[in-house]
Amino acid sequence: GQVLADTHRMIRQGFPEAVYAEGKTLEQTSDALAALVAAHGCALATRVNAEAGEMLMQRFPTGSYDGVSRLYRIGRMSGDFKALTVAVVCAGTSDVPVAEEAAQTLEFAGVSVRRITDVGVAGLHRLLARLDDVRAASLVIAVAGMEGALPSVLGGLVAAPVIAVPTSVGYGANLQGVAALLGMLNSCASGLSVVNIDNGFGAAMAAIRMLNVMVKA
Amino acid sequence: GQVLADTHRMIRQGFPEAVYAEGKTLEQTSDALAALVAAHGCALATRVNAEAGEMLMQRFPTGSYDGVSRLYRIGRMSGDFKALTVAVVCAGTSDVPVAEEAAQTLEFAGVSVRRITDVGVAGLHRLLARLDDVRAASLVIAVAGMEGALPSVLGGLVAAPVIAVPTSVGYGANLQGVAALLGMLNSCASGLSVVNIDNGFGAAMAAIRMLNVMVKA
Amino acid sequence: GQVLADTHRMIRQGFPEAVYAEGKTLEQTSDALAALVAAHGCALATRVNAEAGEMLMQRFPTGSYDGVSRLYRIGRMSGDFKALTVAVVCAGTSDVPVAEEAAQTLEFAGVSVRRITDVGVAGLHRLLARLDDVRAASLVIAVAGMEGALPSVLGGLVAAPVIAVPTSVGYGANLQGVAALLGMLNSCASGLSVVNIDNGFGAAMAAIRMLNVMVKA
Amino acid sequence: GQVLADTHRMIRQGFPEAVYAEGKTLEQTSDALAALVAAHGCALATRVNAEAGEMLMQRFPTGSYDGVSRLYRIGRMSGDFKALTVAVVCAGTSDVPVAEEAAQTLEFAGVSVRRITDVGVAGLHRLLARLDDVRAASLVIAVAGMEGALPSVLGGLVAAPVIAVPTSVGYGANLQGVAALLGMLNSCASGLSVVNIDNGFGAAMAAIRMLNVMVKA
Amino acid sequence: GQVLADTHRMIRQGFPEAVYAEGKTLEQTSDALAALVAAHGCALATRVNAEAGEMLMQRFPTGSYDGVSRLYRIGRMSGDFKALTVAVVCAGTSDVPVAEEAAQTLEFAGVSVRRITDVGVAGLHRLLARLDDVRAASLVIAVAGMEGALPSVLGGLVAAPVIAVPTSVGYGANLQGVAALLGMLNSCASGLSVVNIDNGFGAAMAAIRMLNVMVKA
Amino acid sequence: GQVLADTHRMIRQGFPEAVYAEGKTLEQTSDALAALVAAHGCALATRVNAEAGEMLMQRFPTGSYDGVSRLYRIGRMSGDFKALTVAVVCAGTSDVPVAEEAAQTLEFAGVSVRRITDVGVAGLHRLLARLDDVRAASLVIAVAGMEGALPSVLGGLVAAPVIAVPTSVGYGANLQGVAALLGMLNSCASGLSVVNIDNGFGAAMAAIRMLNVMVKA
Amino acid sequence: GQVLADTHRMIRQGFPEAVYAEGKTLEQTSDALAALVAAHGCALATRVNAEAGEMLMQRFPTGSYDGVSRLYRIGRMSGDFKALTVAVVCAGTSDVPVAEEAAQTLEFAGVSVRRITDVGVAGLHRLLARLDDVRAASLVIAVAGMEGALPSVLGGLVAAPVIAVPTSVGYGANLQGVAALLGMLNSCASGLSVVNIDNGFGAAMAAIRMLNVMVKA
Amino acid sequence: GQVLADTHRMIRQGFPEAVYAEGKTLEQTSDALAALVAAHGCALATRVNAEAGEMLMQRFPTGSYDGVSRLYRIGRMSGDFKALTVAVVCAGTSDVPVAEEAAQTLEFAGVSVRRITDVGVAGLHRLLARLDDVRAASLVIAVAGMEGALPSVLGGLVAAPVIAVPTSVGYGANLQGVAALLGMLNSCASGLSVVNIDNGFGAAMAAIRMLNVMVKA
Ligand SMILES: Nc1ncnc2c1ncn2[C@@H]1O[C@H](COP(=O)(O)O)[C@@H](O)[C@H]1O
Ligand SMILES: Nc1ncnc2c1ncn2[C@@H]1O[C@H](COP(=O)(O)O)[C@@H](O)[C@H]1O
Ligand SMILES: Nc1ncnc2c1ncn2[C@@H]1O[C@H](COP(=O)(O)O)[C@@H](O)[C@H]1O
Ligand SMILES: Nc1ncnc2c1ncn2[C@@H]1O[C@H](COP(=O)(O)O)[C@@H](O)[C@H]1O
Ligand SMILES: [Mg+2]
Ligand SMILES: [Mg+2]
Ligand SMILES: [Mg+2]
Ligand SMILES: [Mg+2]
Ligand SMILES: [Mg+2]
Ligand SMILES: [Mg+2]
Ligand SMILES: [Mg+2]
Ligand SMILES: [Mg+2]
Repeated sequence: GQVLADTHRMIRQGFPEAVYAEGKTLEQTSDALAALVAAHGCALATRVNAEAGEMLMQRFPTGSYDGVSRLYRIGRMSGDFKALTVAVVCAGTSDVPVAEEAAQTLEFAGVSVRRITDVGVAGLHRLLARLDDVRAASLVIAVAGMEGALPSVLGGLVAAPVIAVPTSVGYGANLQGVAALLGMLNSCASGLSVVNIDNGFGAAMAAIRMLNVMVKA
Repeated sequence: GQVLADTHRMIRQGFPEAVYAEGKTLEQTSDALAALVAAHGCALATRVNAEAGEMLMQRFPTGSYDGVSRLYRIGRMSGDFKALTVAVVCAGTSDVPVAEEAAQTLEFAGVSVRRITDVGVAGLHRLLARLDDVRAASLVIAVAGMEGALPSVLGGLVAAPVIAVPTSVGYGANLQGVAALLGMLNSCASGLSVVNIDNGFGAAMAAIRMLNVMVKA
Repeated sequence: GQVLADTHRMIRQGFPEAVYAEGKTLEQTSDALAALVAAHGCALATRVNAEAGEMLMQRFPTGSYDGVSRLYRIGRMSGDFKALTVAVVCAGTSDVPVAEEAAQTLEFAGVSVRRITDVGVAGLHRLLARLDDVRAASLVIAVAGMEGALPSVLGGLVAAPVIAVPTSVGYGANLQGVAALLGMLNSCASGLSVVNIDNGFGAAMAAIRMLNVMVKA
Repeated sequence: GQVLADTHRMIRQGFPEAVYAEGKTLEQTSDALAALVAAHGCALATRVNAEAGEMLMQRFPTGSYDGVSRLYRIGRMSGDFKALTVAVVCAGTSDVPVAEEAAQTLEFAGVSVRRITDVGVAGLHRLLARLDDVRAASLVIAVAGMEGALPSVLGGLVAAPVIAVPTSVGYGANLQGVAALLGMLNSCASGLSVVNIDNGFGAAMAAIRMLNVMVKA
Repeated sequence: GQVLADTHRMIRQGFPEAVYAEGKTLEQTSDALAALVAAHGCALATRVNAEAGEMLMQRFPTGSYDGVSRLYRIGRMSGDFKALTVAVVCAGTSDVPVAEEAAQTLEFAGVSVRRITDVGVAGLHRLLARLDDVRAASLVIAVAGMEGALPSVLGGLVAAPVIAVPTSVGYGANLQGVAALLGMLNSCASGLSVVNIDNGFGAAMAAIRMLNVMVKA
Repeated sequence: GQVLADTHRMIRQGFPEAVYAEGKTLEQTSDALAALVAAHGCALATRVNAEAGEMLMQRFPTGSYDGVSRLYRIGRMSGDFKALTVAVVCAGTSDVPVAEEAAQTLEFAGVSVRRITDVGVAGLHRLLARLDDVRAASLVIAVAGMEGALPSVLGGLVAAPVIAVPTSVGYGANLQGVAALLGMLNSCASGLSVVNIDNGFGAAMAAIRMLNVMVKA
Repeated sequence: GQVLADTHRMIRQGFPEAVYAEGKTLEQTSDALAALVAAHGCALATRVNAEAGEMLMQRFPTGSYDGVSRLYRIGRMSGDFKALTVAVVCAGTSDVPVAEEAAQTLEFAGVSVRRITDVGVAGLHRLLARLDDVRAASLVIAVAGMEGALPSVLGGLVAAPVIAVPTSVGYGANLQGVAALLGMLNSCASGLSVVNIDNGFGAAMAAIRMLNVMVKA
Repeated sequence: GQVLADTHRMIRQGFPEAVYAEGKTLEQTSDALAALVAAHGCALATRVNAEAGEMLMQRFPTGSYDGVSRLYRIGRMSGDFKALTVAVVCAGTSDVPVAEEAAQTLEFAGVSVRRITDVGVAGLHRLLARLDDVRAASLVIAVAGMEGALPSVLGGLVAAPVIAVPTSVGYGANLQGVAALLGMLNSCASGLSVVNIDNGFGAAMAAIRMLNVMVKA
């Protein structure tokens, strides 16, 4: 077939390969999921549209589809991250789908997530009101579109690692998220690290790499 | 000659033409200044480098050159803006030259300026500590490089007009100020307006247009 | 819920948060509007498509939907801007939707608007014929697509603040409005300030910030 | 040698090859000029810096170097364009070098040039005052930097062909002339045609192609 | 209404305003056409889609719609360009719609057009075989997508003015026609002039400006 | 007609012109195929969508349509490439359509292809496991989206020519394949050569040019 | 003065503010360093050129300047990261300055660094030979220019967090590091996080945020 | 040390690593060359500036430096490519340095080169006059700046592989070679392959990969 699932990835990286469903036929997605479930007992597909989500429910009835995050999940990983939690903070309501891709990928991996939503910098008091919640977390994933200033402000307020996720929310000079991406890469708050536009999954994976070291440390 | 000074501008716009010295020969800059002084009794040149500044001192000994803002000023305008003041807020020390171009252009026009420097969002307490000063002003000019988040945060905190000036301070994905420019154009704090990268002069001119209406209102 | 309306904004900025409906579910838009109406007695949503407009009419029957500006308005603000008016000048008929987003946001805030339409620089006499109307206004919002030269020409003719709004009208090297945006940022008529492409709402908000200071001055 | 002068060009196109001196060694420029003089009795080099200009004076003492246009000219063409003239209109004093590259290339070809300088759209009355001069010409070359609005305004006022030349005068979002270039390509005044940024030579060549047809028509 | 047809344009520029239908409502297009027909006895709309074309046939039954060029024409101009012809040369079959927009705009103005199609530089013999036809024309409009090399090659072979029209034909690094546009602006064959991507109409207008001077010369 | 098939191309380049169906009417595609079949006994069309594929089956029943590669093939060329084979290596399952466009174009020309699929650098062991297969080929076509690192890694491991094909697979900062394109152009593994984004056909053609020389050498 | 050192940063973020010397006068850099030494007993300046380095040696004789990393360090932090080490892996010799900025910033903070240099993917065996060293580290900083493929390959081979640093090493389509940046953002190896081009300092800061959590976990 | 020469590269790829001198200290370049000479008996450095060239002459007196190509060569490879020759064709005199980097790298490898210079498409007869020379070669390297049309025209005329090298020769909308690069990637002449801007070395390496297969075929 045309799919060669990377079933060693679990060993090398502590996380199974996830299936990127965009641009794949349903059959290709399906085959990849089957191979991964066979190897690991669980599997995750990202960027699954509603129609494909329904079809997958028929082939993998124990799975579940979430229309906001567009994730299809079968089972979950057996990891144990103890008391470590991740704060998924998001600037606007329109950024929720990306934040959920991050949050639910983390939950699939067994990580506890605290969601803090609609606390963009235009109304700073909303973020300041939630600062204790953010500070309680071991890691922060900060999701923002438009000018993407939230991670900068957060990065100046907390000591924990901040993974910044630009979203494509906005229009015009936003250039489909490029404005937010550039903003985050140039943050004056040192020590942010950044993932691709709308890449909630990638942010969760970066977090899991860190948490894996933390639980072992 | 090759210079046709727009000496009507004072009447149409309430501010004389300023000479943009970049790319002009010393003679062209000089001729333009002379024509403007003849018409208005005062004149301003921008983007004057140190060497040209010295030469202009010889031709116009009553003028003065400032190496930080790179402005050459002869006399000043006779405007009266009463108690109206402008806060020129800047994010980092490296943004000072642009902030000074704005501040000193305002002072040439007779406007009172309050400078608030090095209050970038990475250390938010510095800005919050100066908030009363900012709120006391009728207008805010917010100057920032890197990701340019300062005007967004300010715009959320004050009701006054905020003129955002991106600077070319930064490197790499900053793209010589384009990152800050895009950030400001996409601000989630509604009602910012933006001028060109490093255009402190333009921000001052936008402020003067507003102040002119305010004093008349 | 996923919406945390910034109901303090009225106090800080003199204008309530507006709901950006693009990328929100109908429920999210609805919830945000409800919270804002509860707090302020009025509310505004932008970028509402026709279908959503109809649905909102059912939930908020006292509201009204305008298909050109794509605004949904419930009530209006109680501000009083006295005799101050804003001229909303637009270059071509295709720019009308953006101009209307600006004009109707201003009207929601209680500002008088004078519309001057289809006066692009290719036929300069049309603009010159309306110059008295433009000069009668305290503020000018200039809306233009293609090369976006209208605000430059206007900026040279009037002393009032000019808020320039580039539109995405055009094709090819227009790059969805980037050409007009760059043109406006680089205007040789000093003192323009610029908002995001197609951001009629933002231009109105910038105007309201200025008018608020003017009425107090 | 490394230079193969295209001496047929005169026959095919009615204008000899010009030597683009940028990136050539003095020897290469020299050899090319020599071959062209041998074939046509005259030759033109563009983008010649001051130092190279001096050296060429030694090798071709009948030639002349102009430091503003950076042209080196030997002799001139024997064309006769009768009463046809070209107006070279330029927006700001800083655009003069590009305008001169155009004007002096035309003069090398035997064309009469009328220079109209420093009539940018920020002070429209300057242009309107010279409109009769512009209208007297068979062709217009319009040179402008910053937002490049001059050709749009001119294109709306005159019936003659308008060749628009963007210059790299400006900074920041000007992107070294790209803003002016995009503006000119998107002009709402139909029927402009555009050449490369700072390409005064190319504009002159486009004009000569047109004049050649006109004198024959 | 929202349409202010520029009916003076005929006098200033020798060509009536054309209606750019993209982004206009059918009513706006219709009103503009009616005003122009009233003033000039003829009118032209560009970028008219098939559906709008049909509707316009009902309101203006003497008009005609062409689905390839997307032009709607009512009557034609009374100009007389004598024996002057324009060669509209196009590189590939996919560029035909843009070439037809140019050709039919010319025909609306009363200009004779010679079409030379599918002679791209990948098969140079096709172009060389048609060279006499090209050389018989007073002006050349060269339309090409992909790398847009056709105008360069043509510009080296003929003495007439060459108006280069980049098209958006291509994919990937073509960037919707930007590759062809940049190629044409940088042509080593001097004296090309360039219009916007897919702007067949603009090329025709540039040609008409030239032809108007030629018939008078 | 509007199609002028380049039937000499076979002689000049050893491969008949292929029909690029995107942006052509069915009739234009059909006419071009008919002319090519008449001249060469075989023909190939690329970028044929499903609907057009079906219609072409009716006009050319001996042809065949493949929905993955979007190729329509009639007959095949009579070339003989002996034992020379091409490895078509692709990074992810989503890149298969582009890889198939390359592979099936090669097969149309009579070349043996070895397909190696889903061996992206995130799981390097998959590629290393197939290295002997890759090394057995005379030429490698390496197809990859996202960051496009596969050709770099391959280029460091094999001595054969590597033709790199970036795909538009990815999102956000991928910029529709520009990220992969730039990556391949900047490869630290010297001697890669690159074709346009998603241009499987062009990669096959580059390979055929090389194979033609190899069989003759 | 113009410098307002953020001396609270140590408390909020566990790392003192560092002085970005680019675009600052020597006096500004000096003042900022003095304030930071006063508050924390140690200080770090980045992007210090050789001349400034020498001058700083006179004012702060206990400090030290390194010409490769361009860091000026005074004292060091008192942190204790126990056995945790960071591998700083770099692709080419030309990337060393950026890698050293990261490595020496880490050492200033008290972190043990393992340097692995010149192991780019063009010669994969060099990296594979050092894999045990890489795997021994708690965190990996991967520095690469040109196409920036090293972090992708590393990300597929190790489970630890990988912080990717693009460098501006390269030319042409490299676009001063943008090619490498885009490559890293689009990596098919999930869970990389990325900092700005040439931002070795930022990568070190991101690592320190993570290590701070690890030592506490 | 900081240099880990990839001395296996000869075995894997049939060509030793070359030293990219840009951004390296003289010592690093020197050390790398020494290691390579020790392993292979010969070595090549690229992008060596004049000053470094002189210094290397002292350390490696048997080597030779060429100021046009900026190559430093020590010895040469022992390869035997029999009668196979490569045509290095270049469009303008200004492109010679890039063409020489390609030609002399080939000669270092033992390949016969035929240079064909200054045959750009603006004067097509120059290229047609040399067509037999081009056709006699097994491979063509086509070097061009500005719009980069030469490889397209060549690709349509010859059957051999054409490796296209864009150069940064040009200005303005040339964007330092990006215009030529995009042109070549979008060529309508199928089967070109492209290397980075100004990458004469890379073109030679791509040619050597092909020649290695040809001599073995
Ligand atoms: N058309 C618009 N353009 C830009 N910003 C808007 C627009 N409409 C509303 N906003 C603002 O955008 C922000 C949206 O954040 P959220 O609704 O939480 O995603 C709020 O601060 C709104 O005031
Ligand atoms: N720093 C500046 N940035 C932007 N525009 C400026 C600046 N200084 C002066 N100007 C304006 O730029 C125009 C320069 O035109 P010119 O001097 O004729 O080339 C004038 O309208 C000036 O008012
Ligand atoms: N002019 C050049 N352009 C592109 N790559 C080159 C050039 N010269 C040498 N190289 C390659 O660039 C890499 C340089 O890596 P390094 O020397 O470790 O920074 C090596 O793989 C060289 O073979
Ligand atoms: N300033 C200029 N801008 C653009 N092209 C030029 C300029 N001056 C000369 N040329 C043309 O550029 C080409 C230069 O080719 P070459 O001299 O062989 O590198 C010739 O066709 C010249 O006619
Ligand atoms: Mg919100
Ligand atoms: Mg600071
Ligand atoms: Mg109109
Ligand atoms: Mg001027
Ligand atoms: Mg064709
Ligand atoms: Mg896969
Ligand atoms: Mg190396
Ligand atoms: Mg030449």
